[in-house]
Amino acid sequence: MRIAIPLFDSITVLDAVGPYEILSRVPGMEVKFVGAERRLYASDNGMLRLQADATLAEIPAPEILCVPGGVGVFQEIDGPLVPWIRQAHETSTWTTSVCTGSLLLGAAGVLDGLKATTHWMSLERLPAYGAAPTGDRVVEQGRVITAAGVSSGLDMALILAARLVGDDIAQAIQLSVEYDPQPPFDAGSPEKAPAVAMELARAAVRRREARAAERACA
Amino acid sequence: MRIAIPLFDSITVLDAVGPYEILSRVPGMEVKFVGAERRLYASDNGMLRLQADATLAEIPAPEILCVPGGVGVFQEIDGPLVPWIRQAHETSTWTTSVCTGSLLLGAAGVLDGLKATTHWMSLERLPAYGAAPTGDRVVEQGRVITAAGVSSGLDMALILAARLVGDDIAQAIQLSVEYDPQPPFDAGSPEKAPAVAMELARAAVRRREARAAERACA
Repeated sequence: MRIAIPLFDSITVLDAVGPYEILSRVPGMEVKFVGAERRLYASDNGMLRLQADATLAEIPAPEILCVPGGVGVFQEIDGPLVPWIRQAHETSTWTTSVCTGSLLLGAAGVLDGLKATTHWMSLERLPAYGAAPTGDRVVEQGRVITAAGVSSGLDMALILAARLVGDDIAQAIQLSVEYDPQPPFDAGSPEKAPAVAMELARAAVRRREARAAERACA
Repeated sequence: MRIAIPLFDSITVLDAVGPYEILSRVPGMEVKFVGAERRLYASDNGMLRLQADATLAEIPAPEILCVPGGVGVFQEIDGPLVPWIRQAHETSTWTTSVCTGSLLLGAAGVLDGLKATTHWMSLERLPAYGAAPTGDRVVEQGRVITAAGVSSGLDMALILAARLVGDDIAQAIQLSVEYDPQPPFDAGSPEKAPAVAMELARAAVRRREARAAERACA
């Protein structure tokens, strides 16, 4: 069984690495990091680079797609990733996204008529793709699963692992990565976060988007 | 402020990327991925490669060290990483680890006489380094913080972010990465996991260690 995770510049790395860390532990699973080109792709902050070891063209029909997000998504919407998703979705067993990766699924037509989610700051962008936004952390619609912001890919991937190989192995994977979360605050969703955290988070994302746009134009 | 995260072959990627994703969002923070050489390093399963953009020698005195784990640790214990940690710890503000990264701190003498943690399957290895193992998810001992297995780096990094820049910004970071965990099972620690998950997880780690040892010898 093969899962393809596309890389692009200004990706949010945890969007990709959360599902990778879980799903690579499914027995018999091969995870391929793919890119428009076989090269290094830089994170949204420019501090980390990941290698795409295969091109999109080399992996046209993975059983599973997991599309990560990040501010680079807004540059990718008109690029080669969207037609690749559209085609791969025709034959995939599961088509999934984390964070603003769902906007790429949307641009590929995958979410038309479905409920879906994304990073809380981008929920308002989903209706443009015919999708009904929900505030749920993981939204399953048949073989399409979208997850909320960044860290939600861990929960999504555990749910998917259970669908693929059953609860016993999914629980063993949860134990292997010791995913017994104990965050020091309960500020992880817009419903729970204090107003000051909301404002700081919005400002940080605006700065990140501006920097990524600058890099894309440079 | 600069944080150095060392890479090595057969690293568990989420060990490094969890703290990176949180701490890179601390205002003014620069995260450097460092390696013995400036090259790509492969994950424990061989499926993902990350670039070290600086050498250990180039970053001898980061304010913060965050040492990830993975089965590659057992090959690294006799390598250049350990003396680098020993030296960097002399001047660091914070010295931290995730998962079996604590064994490298231990080999560098950092944990002697301290309480510490690591992946639950490696707790028994800590006393060899003079450390007292605890089952806590994050263990703070002055400027030394060790975290448990793989995903615990997210919790450790949020705690560290709060120490560095206060609760408001740490909560904004938690919200930015939408860390509102909702795993589908409650099997993330040996106290909670069913016996069958324990057995499956142990067998998987043994296979992973054997494969990494094979690759190291190849």
